[in-house]
Amino acid sequence: MSIQEKYDSFVEYTRELSALDAAESLLAWDQQTYMPPMGAESKSRQLATLSGIHHDMLVSDTMKRHLDELANGDLDKLGEDARVNVREMKRAYDHASRVPTKLVRDIARAQSLGMEAWAEAREKSDYKIFAPWLEKLLKLKCEQADAIGYEESRYDALHDEFEMGSTAKRITSVFAKLRDELVPLVDRIVNSDVAKAQKIPARDYPRAKQEALGRELLTAIGFDWKAGRIDVSAHPFCTGNLHDVRLTTRYNEKDLTQALFGLMHEGGHGLYEQGFDPAHQGTPRAQAVSLGIHESQSLMWENIVGRDRGFWKFAYPKLQKHFAPTFDSVSPEEWYKEINKVERSFIRVEADEVTYCLHVILRFELEVEMIEGRLPVKDIPEAWNAKMKDFLGITPKNDAEGCLQDIHWSHGIFGYFPTYALGYLYSAQFYNQAKKDLPGVEDDYAKGEFGRLLGWLRKNIHQRGMTYAPHDLVKVVTGEELDTKYLIDYLTKKYTPIYEL
Amino acid sequence: MSIQEKYDSFVEYTRELSALDAAESLLAWDQQTYMPPMGAESKSRQLATLSGIHHDMLVSDTMKRHLDELANGDLDKLGEDARVNVREMKRAYDHASRVPTKLVRDIARAQSLGMEAWAEAREKSDYKIFAPWLEKLLKLKCEQADAIGYEESRYDALHDEFEMGSTAKRITSVFAKLRDELVPLVDRIVNSDVAKAQKIPARDYPRAKQEALGRELLTAIGFDWKAGRIDVSAHPFCTGNLHDVRLTTRYNEKDLTQALFGLMHEGGHGLYEQGFDPAHQGTPRAQAVSLGIHESQSLMWENIVGRDRGFWKFAYPKLQKHFAPTFDSVSPEEWYKEINKVERSFIRVEADEVTYCLHVILRFELEVEMIEGRLPVKDIPEAWNAKMKDFLGITPKNDAEGCLQDIHWSHGIFGYFPTYALGYLYSAQFYNQAKKDLPGVEDDYAKGEFGRLLGWLRKNIHQRGMTYAPHDLVKVVTGEELDTKYLIDYLTKKYTPIYEL
Repeated sequence: MSIQEKYDSFVEYTRELSALDAAESLLAWDQQTYMPPMGAESKSRQLATLSGIHHDMLVSDTMKRHLDELANGDLDKLGEDARVNVREMKRAYDHASRVPTKLVRDIARAQSLGMEAWAEAREKSDYKIFAPWLEKLLKLKCEQADAIGYEESRYDALHDEFEMGSTAKRITSVFAKLRDELVPLVDRIVNSDVAKAQKIPARDYPRAKQEALGRELLTAIGFDWKAGRIDVSAHPFCTGNLHDVRLTTRYNEKDLTQALFGLMHEGGHGLYEQGFDPAHQGTPRAQAVSLGIHESQSLMWENIVGRDRGFWKFAYPKLQKHFAPTFDSVSPEEWYKEINKVERSFIRVEADEVTYCLHVILRFELEVEMIEGRLPVKDIPEAWNAKMKDFLGITPKNDAEGCLQDIHWSHGIFGYFPTYALGYLYSAQFYNQAKKDLPGVEDDYAKGEFGRLLGWLRKNIHQRGMTYAPHDLVKVVTGEELDTKYLIDYLTKKYTPIYEL
Repeated sequence: MSIQEKYDSFVEYTRELSALDAAESLLAWDQQTYMPPMGAESKSRQLATLSGIHHDMLVSDTMKRHLDELANGDLDKLGEDARVNVREMKRAYDHASRVPTKLVRDIARAQSLGMEAWAEAREKSDYKIFAPWLEKLLKLKCEQADAIGYEESRYDALHDEFEMGSTAKRITSVFAKLRDELVPLVDRIVNSDVAKAQKIPARDYPRAKQEALGRELLTAIGFDWKAGRIDVSAHPFCTGNLHDVRLTTRYNEKDLTQALFGLMHEGGHGLYEQGFDPAHQGTPRAQAVSLGIHESQSLMWENIVGRDRGFWKFAYPKLQKHFAPTFDSVSPEEWYKEINKVERSFIRVEADEVTYCLHVILRFELEVEMIEGRLPVKDIPEAWNAKMKDFLGITPKNDAEGCLQDIHWSHGIFGYFPTYALGYLYSAQFYNQAKKDLPGVEDDYAKGEFGRLLGWLRKNIHQRGMTYAPHDLVKVVTGEELDTKYLIDYLTKKYTPIYEL
């Protein structure tokens, strides 16, 4: 067989794995959207079966043979795309084959029981109920990290699964700088004399109207409905890719902004997924490179564009029309200030764009100490509250609004949190570059034009798939290492006039 | 390993196959309901991947080892249910392993191209476009039949896949009798002096109201919404089983009856699927035994109950309320006659319950001649039209309303059609028995009570899963062989007063 034939055969196998993956995503989508309540047990069984088959195919002798053939062959002849695909499937193979099956099963069981314990602990705000499970999950995840292997920190082995090539050491220094800049900025904002912006009118916002507005805005920014759709789920998400991208949202008829910005956020994820190169469908070359880069796209559309003054020149008349006459007496400027309010708060998922990263840095710092064995599980609530006081100047009244608020650890997910703040940093640095490359792009939005920005994202980020690890992608796109100054500049420039700092 | 352990291990494997099957069904459901248009190609790939894995697992060495172990072991110790499950998985294994992979692939390709040719042929009403593909598909399916093997007729090998244990010989004699009784009954009805019933008012029937009425009626007959749902698709179907049963329908806002009886029909399929014994989930013991038995359940609820005078005593006020005031001037009796109109017509899927089986018998007779090599493909239009004239006294004006109307042959599906008419026969014979076992059951419906009938179907049919082959099930439930007299009696008794025969 020629190297081309070997590669083609490898790609065919990779596409089968990808088809299996797409099937799993669809089942999970159905679980969250349309499945009748009693279908849950049968659905878990289906998901477990597919994921077992997926794992077996990924670590199979067939996959090993493909990778061995391409490792020895003259792969460079086939060019960059082939190199990316082989590199990434090798990485996936290595990760999956290093973790013993028994450990995978032990983790799955502990996750399932851990989540139950966490739900009860959060409801009762009683950390002691969850602590033994967190201990167990932490231990198992450390074993997993050791099985996978790492160079500097055990944390890296877990974090790498979500943010290829990123390390605790690198993040620690970036986050420390970010923290030291955000804390005083938040202080200045919340201590400013600017009166709290006018509240959005307390009205019923019918779901159908929210949906119509959301669709109109997603259409404007370029979401392709022939290749995607929106449904309703308890927790919003985006799944699928390229020609079949599913967004979900939830509608709160008392609060218009949840679904509105939720849809802009998921729509940003969706634009990334729809933006890969279809020639590479079913291979890493047409897949999202990391959670952080994914988040940079959702935040770009939710916050940088979606909470921009120019954007609302275009969008506010639409909002007024859909909910007429509710907003007749609210000026666009009042609306703009309302959707850009900054507050010290306890709950990460409700935080604004200035305080958000502090919530994430707190979790990251605790996670590293936990994984590296310096923070005992029993001391987490105290450590959490101390950092909350340091970063945001407030103290949770109980663990439910403190260290029990997020589901991640209960599911054994460590190393995931930093990707949220990395997304903020990436999005600001990418956007700074987009503005340089596209003079006057901010003026497009008021005219309802988003094609230049989307085109830039397509070319510089989406179409590249997994070609570059996130930190390399940042360098390739912006010519610089990741730097906190872009996010700080963006926030300072935006919030200085709003809060008359 | 003890025989019990061997059996448990076999059941575990069977359940994995069943989970894979359920995943395939869900993907196919999504394809027909929510998939965005551009998702089609990726969906085919997913379905092909899963069905390939399914086939490999079914004919794997693992499956063979399980079956061998249980063939040699003392299976009888484990009782009837174990015997049924092993017998049925062995049957599935034998069928799948006898057909060479190359033939499976050739058939799949011919199906795909054959369907395209058929669609064009039907649109242009030009049989010549389809004939070469039908020739090819017929040849391949004959090869498949020969690979599977049969005792009397090659037709049996294909038909058995849909109606276990049923044979051309047995059907030929039953259908000949049925045909000879239906033809004069149809004649008497269409030649009767009774004026055509009043037309249902020509109005818009809003989809939401049709849906609400449909849900109300399905709830009444016992469909469990915690374990099922309704969505919209171009072609109505029912998929899934036990705790997750999905029905689909389509709404025609000009014709209320399509979705109404369509939902009663799919609801009948759904009641069967929800009615299996959950203790046996994922094994043949909790699966539908045949298409004919499935159809007996849908026809029971669509026609025997759903077009019953007593049923409409209960349901008509609901219909009047949902569509008020449209039906204020239409009496229940007029409605009853309207939904039980009998007409000679060309299109099977639009036929009423008296003429329907003649459409099926026509197809069956042609199919047997084709498969047994006595009817050349080129002669089908002529043979079709001759039978249409014989059975229904009418001649299609072209092949689009003649031999090109159904999709089945274009998809290489031979041996399926008879299950439609078998469903009519089974349903009438089962119902006759139910009336004997449940005195006065027909009087329940006017009171909106359907629990006695459903309970009887659950116990006698649903809960038995694949325990008995259809012809044995008929004997077990009714104490007799399948007999056309029950359907003829039912139709004669019902239509004699309607048409004053």
